[in-house]
Amino acid sequence: MPRPAPERLSPDHYPHHDIIQTRFQDLDILGHINNVAMAVLFESARVRFNRAIGLLRPSGHRFLVARVEVNYLAEGGFPDDVAAYHGIGRIGTRSWEILGLLAQNGTPIATADVTLVMSAETGATELPEDLRATLGEWRVRAV
Amino acid sequence: MPRPAPERLSPDHYPHHDIIQTRFQDLDILGHINNVAMAVLFESARVRFNRAIGLLRPSGHRFLVARVEVNYLAEGGFPDDVAAYHGIGRIGTRSWEILGLLAQNGTPIATADVTLVMSAETGATELPEDLRATLGEWRVRAV
Amino acid sequence: MPRPAPERLSPDHYPHHDIIQTRFQDLDILGHINNVAMAVLFESARVRFNRAIGLLRPSGHRFLVARVEVNYLAEGGFPDDVAAYHGIGRIGTRSWEILGLLAQNGTPIATADVTLVMSAETGATELPEDLRATLGEWRVRAV
Amino acid sequence: MPRPAPERLSPDHYPHHDIIQTRFQDLDILGHINNVAMAVLFESARVRFNRAIGLLRPSGHRFLVARVEVNYLAEGGFPDDVAAYHGIGRIGTRSWEILGLLAQNGTPIATADVTLVMSAETGATELPEDLRATLGEWRVRAV
Repeated sequence: MPRPAPERLSPDHYPHHDIIQTRFQDLDILGHINNVAMAVLFESARVRFNRAIGLLRPSGHRFLVARVEVNYLAEGGFPDDVAAYHGIGRIGTRSWEILGLLAQNGTPIATADVTLVMSAETGATELPEDLRATLGEWRVRAV
Repeated sequence: MPRPAPERLSPDHYPHHDIIQTRFQDLDILGHINNVAMAVLFESARVRFNRAIGLLRPSGHRFLVARVEVNYLAEGGFPDDVAAYHGIGRIGTRSWEILGLLAQNGTPIATADVTLVMSAETGATELPEDLRATLGEWRVRAV
Repeated sequence: MPRPAPERLSPDHYPHHDIIQTRFQDLDILGHINNVAMAVLFESARVRFNRAIGLLRPSGHRFLVARVEVNYLAEGGFPDDVAAYHGIGRIGTRSWEILGLLAQNGTPIATADVTLVMSAETGATELPEDLRATLGEWRVRAV
Repeated sequence: MPRPAPERLSPDHYPHHDIIQTRFQDLDILGHINNVAMAVLFESARVRFNRAIGLLRPSGHRFLVARVEVNYLAEGGFPDDVAAYHGIGRIGTRSWEILGLLAQNGTPIATADVTLVMSAETGATELPEDLRATLGEWRVRAV
């Protein structure tokens, strides 16, 4: 069973970090953060990351989420906050990756790999140069 | 259409306050905090309030939510935090009220009135004296 | 502690019924349908009810949820479906009530009283006659 | 950008199918099923699949979700139901895959690949023979 590469568990790998609150609603019947709730935490942190780096939608374009992979590493709980770390992975012609890590009390609890596709009315389309430049400034780092 | 009493919109009415993050997931198709998401925000703040005042479950007892009333006052958004204000309302023989207010950027956006019932194996049961004493210390205040 | 009037627990009180699936996500740490999830079930059933009775938004108008009251009567579970019953309550000048009941395996588990307000750019506004007529056809019934 | 193999989009690939209701809550600000809501739909269908094939937890053991990959193929909406198709993929020594497809109105909208790990108090542990046999009966099929 392939697991995330070791650098993916290091906060230093990611150029952006944020603090996200957990909610009572995130807990499942075992009292841990449910695996879908973990995806919600990543989503909220990712939207905040996109805003933080000034990622605006070019007019007439949309970003579509094409693929989400979450690897679960340890159980999370409530009410402690989670630390969210994000950076940009692969940048393709028409798509890019946002890579994330959630940690709670210093322990990595999950990673997320999200692929976004730039979409116009006519289907997938090439990334504009200014978007490509912004993404390039927020690449994950070697650790 | 009856609306919340004016003091219910004042943060000074409530002895406890907290900051709750909003999430992208809270938004509805109009881009506002969905009314169910507002109930989730209240729930999360209420559980944190219960923990903050040391409300522990007497062994063999449970608190059940018997009634929730939410009044919507203004639209909320993401990503701004909301301020949550809570205090204890009516304390009955077997039940009590938790009263709450959410505000965003200084504007009251919703109030919640929640009735809890103390339950034992045999059904609703009287509040133990120590619980009654704790609740009494956190009553909402005249403003 | 006031409770719903007896007729509110009778499916015959409501002119519309529907079947709503429960989800694993609806369960809380005690294995019962969480009280916010109950509000989600009501919301989903209510939107379907509005569509079923042909409630369209007059152009330039919106319905806003002004107040939601949920009374919890018994615990619900997964994976059994719930039966949702809805009808129209009080019809005011600028607002109206949607009254609902959820039952699971023949047992009433919760009621909801929702007040909606007709809103235009300029604030709350009077209900148009055709909306008032439609609502009148779906009133709850004496039982 | 790798995409799901063509057979993954065919209902015939999967030995189990079910119908899952969508909810108004599943919609995002664009009026489509949000990508996290898609994960909720898969989760609910997967739990029902596990129950349908009689997957019981051996005493002292738990299944942990180790990895979830969702590929988004087309936009989904409300209130139409989705069809959920599931089967077992790779069966390893200590883990196995559940593979799923969601379709709406005959159009594939997403696939999910979920890896579960058998866990005991002492960590990951081997799959018991009876579990392995049950999983073997529900393998996805060549199409």
